[in-house]
Amino acid sequence: MDNNKQTDQIVFTARTATDVEKGLDFAPKFDANGLIAAMAVDHVTREPLMLAYMNEESLKMTLAFGEAVYYSRSRQEIWHKGATSGHVQKIKQILVDCDQDALILLVDQVGAGACHTGHHSCFYRSVPFGSQVEPGKPVTLALAEEGLAFDAEAVYGKH
Amino acid sequence: MDNNKQTDQIVFTARTATDVEKGLDFAPKFDANGLIAAMAVDHVTREPLMLAYMNEESLKMTLAFGEAVYYSRSRQEIWHKGATSGHVQKIKQILVDCDQDALILLVDQVGAGACHTGHHSCFYRSVPFGSQVEPGKPVTLALAEEGLAFDAEAVYGKH
Repeated sequence: MDNNKQTDQIVFTARTATDVEKGLDFAPKFDANGLIAAMAVDHVTREPLMLAYMNEESLKMTLAFGEAVYYSRSRQEIWHKGATSGHVQKIKQILVDCDQDALILLVDQVGAGACHTGHHSCFYRSVPFGSQVEPGKPVTLALAEEGLAFDAEAVYGKH
Repeated sequence: MDNNKQTDQIVFTARTATDVEKGLDFAPKFDANGLIAAMAVDHVTREPLMLAYMNEESLKMTLAFGEAVYYSRSRQEIWHKGATSGHVQKIKQILVDCDQDALILLVDQVGAGACHTGHHSCFYRSVPFGSQVEPGKPVTLALAEEGLAFDAEAVYGKH
């Protein structure tokens, strides 16, 4: 798709140290790889759905489209979430943190789930801590979510 | 403090590709800088509080202590959250995502806030998107949280 026409008109302010924390200029800070972290959260239930990363282009596409567009680190390409599965994330609100190097996306998750494994949330397992950890033995996760929200193979094909 | 005694007994499983997504072995995936992202969320309100990073040592300290211990990328040191301010984060639950490269910490945030700026959450500003963005003009944030939760200067001193 031709994204340039829509995203060329989105202007980020040059980063100035004094304004980043207390000011109202959006000056996203991309890391050494040109990426910023973005956590998608269900806007109604507040369930954390997934953590992914955006580069400058995918962030501008997100702002222009009102749908989450990430940058896939493994595939090294722009990743319009839901393009394959139909499970797009419609943006309801975007929050940025104090030093402007992390984003929260409050989204309407279309379809049954955010995770390619078939779970509603990618965060479907819990990690033991404190007295739950058995000294000297491998740390073992527990399932934190009941069942699968959709059939991943039917949506994405076998992988 | 002597952390070695407590953290030496925490064992992470060697990472195997097949088990990472569907298995129950905790095999955290650290990035090229040896870090994993961790989002702290209020365990009652589900308010996202902050996004920070952990290295292997601080993750093991988190599991051992039951309090959030991060790795400060700017200071390049272990950062036991709340050591200065008293605003520790008591862990209620830890979740890990499908490819085990991101964590959610559901925490009891002791004290008024998580953010060094004095806000309860680091995510105190919202980013406009879609028709809220004025083409060709700098993107301007809006305050998403009313007022400050505590007096940052009184807690941390002027900075």
